[in-house]
Amino acid sequence: MTLAARSYVALVHHPVLEKGGRVVTTAVTNLDVHDIARASRSYGLAGYFVVTPIAAQRRLVEEIVGHWTTGAGRAHNDKRTDALELVRIVPSLEEARAAAGDAYVVATGARPREGCVSFAALRAARDADPRAVLLVFGTGWGLADDVFAASDAILAPIRGSSPDGYNHLSVRSAVAIVLDRLFGRD
Amino acid sequence: MTLAARSYVALVHHPVLEKGGRVVTTAVTNLDVHDIARASRSYGLAGYFVVTPIAAQRRLVEEIVGHWTTGAGRAHNDKRTDALELVRIVPSLEEARAAAGDAYVVATGARPREGCVSFAALRAARDADPRAVLLVFGTGWGLADDVFAASDAILAPIRGSSPDGYNHLSVRSAVAIVLDRLFGRD
Repeated sequence: MTLAARSYVALVHHPVLEKGGRVVTTAVTNLDVHDIARASRSYGLAGYFVVTPIAAQRRLVEEIVGHWTTGAGRAHNDKRTDALELVRIVPSLEEARAAAGDAYVVATGARPREGCVSFAALRAARDADPRAVLLVFGTGWGLADDVFAASDAILAPIRGSSPDGYNHLSVRSAVAIVLDRLFGRD
Repeated sequence: MTLAARSYVALVHHPVLEKGGRVVTTAVTNLDVHDIARASRSYGLAGYFVVTPIAAQRRLVEEIVGHWTTGAGRAHNDKRTDALELVRIVPSLEEARAAAGDAYVVATGARPREGCVSFAALRAARDADPRAVLLVFGTGWGLADDVFAASDAILAPIRGSSPDGYNHLSVRSAVAIVLDRLFGRD
C-alpha cells in the first residue's frame, strides 16, 4: 500500500492556541471541511478527521457531509461527494489516532521546533514503515504544546520565499502544500 | 530581482466556466481574498489581482481590504494587514496584465492542454527573462478557452497522487501548491 493510501489528515479545533497564546476551542469552518476533503481526495489519502470536542459542532459537520454524501447534494453530482466521503468526525485527536489504526502521529506548525524533521526525511522514514500516518494540523494560532509533546514526529514548517520571513498561510493552504510535498508528482 | 518578487497572481471571476461549460461571472468569495493574499505574501510575490467586471463586487473587495489595511482591522494587528496590502482590484485580466507591467501571462487549469509547460520548465524560462509574470487562476469550473488562447504559456495541471486520477482542488489550494512548486524551499 502506498504511503498516501495509508495516510490521514486531522484538523484539530481543540487543543489549539488563540492569538494571545491561551488554549482554546475554535469553531468549525465550512470551507475547511470542503477544501481539505478535496485535497485529501486528490492526493489519494485514506481519510480526513475533523476533530472537535463540541457535540453541536460535530453535528454541524455531519449535516454538511450528509448533505453531499447521502442528501440533496449527492444529486448535484459534482465531485464533492467523492471528497466528503473521506470525512470522519471525532471528539479528540486520540480517537482519530485509534480510528486510523494506531497511526504514527506527525504534528505540523508554522514555527521551527527542536528535532523537527524535513519533508524528505519524513517521507523516507514512513515509506520504510508500513504503519498508518496521521498528519495533524491546528486551526486558530496552531496546535497546543501538548499535541507536539505527544506526537511521534514534528514536521518542519513550510517556508515560503518572502525575503522578510513572513509565513502566515491559512490552514487550508498549509494542508494543500504539505500533501503536495509529501505525495505530489511534478 | 527574484522571480517571486516580480510575479503576481490573478484570480479571475470572468470569463470563467460554470459546471455545464457556459461562460459566466462568479461571485467573489471572502476567503479567496484572504487565503490567496496570505499565500502570495508568504511566497514574496509582488501583488495579487482580484479580477471582476462587476462594480459592486469590486466595491465589496475594496471594503474587505480596506477594513484590514486602513480600517478597524488594522488595529487587530495580526498579519492580515501585510497580506491584504498586496491586493489590487481590477475589472479585467487585460488591466491586471497592464498594471503588472505588461507581464508574461501564464494560464492555469486542472486539465492537461496541448503545449502546456512543466513547473520546472516554466521556472527556468522565467528565471532567464526579467519580465514580470502573471499567474492566472480561474474560479468556478476554470478559465474560459479565450484566456488560454490569449496567454503566453499554459502551466501543466497539478496532479495529486490519487490512483483514480481524481483532481478537484479548490482554487485556494491550487494557488498555494503552484506558488510552493514555483517558489518554495523544502
